[in-house]
Amino acid sequence: MTDLTLFIANKNYSSWSLRPWMALTGCGIPFDEKLVRFDFSAGNPAIKAISPSGQVPVLQHGAVKVWESVAIIEYVAELFPEAGLWPTDSRDRALARSISLEMACGFRALRNACPMNMRRPVKAIALPDGVMDNVRRIETIWKECLDRSGGPFLFKSFSAADAMFAPVVNRFTTFNLTQDRTALAYMETIRRHPAWIAWVNAALAEPWVIPEDELPEEVEDAYRQVASIAGN
Amino acid sequence: MTDLTLFIANKNYSSWSLRPWMALTGCGIPFDEKLVRFDFSAGNPAIKAISPSGQVPVLQHGAVKVWESVAIIEYVAELFPEAGLWPTDSRDRALARSISLEMACGFRALRNACPMNMRRPVKAIALPDGVMDNVRRIETIWKECLDRSGGPFLFKSFSAADAMFAPVVNRFTTFNLTQDRTALAYMETIRRHPAWIAWVNAALAEPWVIPEDELPEEVEDAYRQVASIAGN
Ligand SMILES: N[C@@H](CCC(=O)N[C@@H](CS)C(=O)NCC(=O)O)C(=O)O
Ligand SMILES: N[C@@H](CCC(=O)N[C@@H](CS)C(=O)NCC(=O)O)C(=O)O
Repeated sequence: MTDLTLFIANKNYSSWSLRPWMALTGCGIPFDEKLVRFDFSAGNPAIKAISPSGQVPVLQHGAVKVWESVAIIEYVAELFPEAGLWPTDSRDRALARSISLEMACGFRALRNACPMNMRRPVKAIALPDGVMDNVRRIETIWKECLDRSGGPFLFKSFSAADAMFAPVVNRFTTFNLTQDRTALAYMETIRRHPAWIAWVNAALAEPWVIPEDELPEEVEDAYRQVASIAGN
Repeated sequence: MTDLTLFIANKNYSSWSLRPWMALTGCGIPFDEKLVRFDFSAGNPAIKAISPSGQVPVLQHGAVKVWESVAIIEYVAELFPEAGLWPTDSRDRALARSISLEMACGFRALRNACPMNMRRPVKAIALPDGVMDNVRRIETIWKECLDRSGGPFLFKSFSAADAMFAPVVNRFTTFNLTQDRTALAYMETIRRHPAWIAWVNAALAEPWVIPEDELPEEVEDAYRQVASIAGN
């Protein structure tokens, strides 16, 4: 038992849950997690019961509830100022927050067309307008940060900014969205991170298909895939 | 001349520009402003020239550029820790950030259907799905904060959280979205704030109509209204 409880949803699907989970895990901050399963067909009553906004992630610390991925990160960064959630240099920190907020508020085309789904096989799709603009902008952000810091993470060592972009690593991979060498190398860095590996393994072990979080034409495949995993 | 330059767009229309502008102004932080006019028909080249994300607001501090409204507020809060951008109590601060981020990332239905427009006369419209859910959630947020703090601002004295919700005050008013007494009283508090008054007066003096930021059926009215103001 720790002081902090992070409420998250299905690891296979919940990109917003992954962000603070990976930020805290990657920075060595102890917390308990509680997984509240998606149930869109019923209106997600279990999530509504614990979250003021009706969404996860939510962090509970005693009587305090914090929601919104970036607010959770800021709260924990204040509790653990030495943990390196944000870079220590004020200029780096300004850049880390700018790109993290750009991710939190933007990239709608990419987020809508290419949902995070840890189980999804690699398969390109016809992309709606705007998705490739989002991809190019993310490639630029990564390149500018990595050139500046020298890598391997956006601000040299792992920070919340990497965690904010982690779901993009899955999207870029399964929808085959980038051939940019800097991006591909950075994605490999994230995929080797212990927090990423732990999350993905837990996601792949989940037996639940959430049709609302699958592309409509892939729902049947998802059920088949889960059945075959469960059958092993 | 100050150290800080805030790039904003048209005061009549740019809700994201209003947020940090009002936060900084309301907390007594000196800054210069540079207005970069919207020109959607040409792809907003002037905004693209100054902003890494292609959007305003952007804060320039020496060689440092900070974008995204919330990142700008965090940056200035670190530069001026005594200015009260965020509440001093850590629990209040967590709540202030949670609701500010909920505003920054959410309320899409309201933001799409009911654009901020300082010049727009009061006129209800048929509301798409989801708008009234957003309105009710904002009423709840305001009520919980005001009950907790005692008002008149969300965290007793003016903070960045009030600034984050300021554009909603215009939307609720011109689209006649709330009859909630707590909400109406809070809106009146914002409308009496000197920073709000200064922004609105500057907005009403702008002679530019941006058709992309008007409801399609109201574009002609907007041109007529501006012509009649200019003719006075
Ligand atoms: N802006 C929020 C987004 C949170 C969000 O969209 N959460 C999703 C799961 S990834 C959710 O709870 N959906 C359930 C629902 O909307 O009913 C954040 O940064 O935390
Ligand atoms: N998430 C951003 C939103 C910024 C934004 O949407 N800015 C608009 C003006 S209100 C803009 O620059 N639009 C120009 C464009 O997209 O071309 C923030 O919080 O600052």
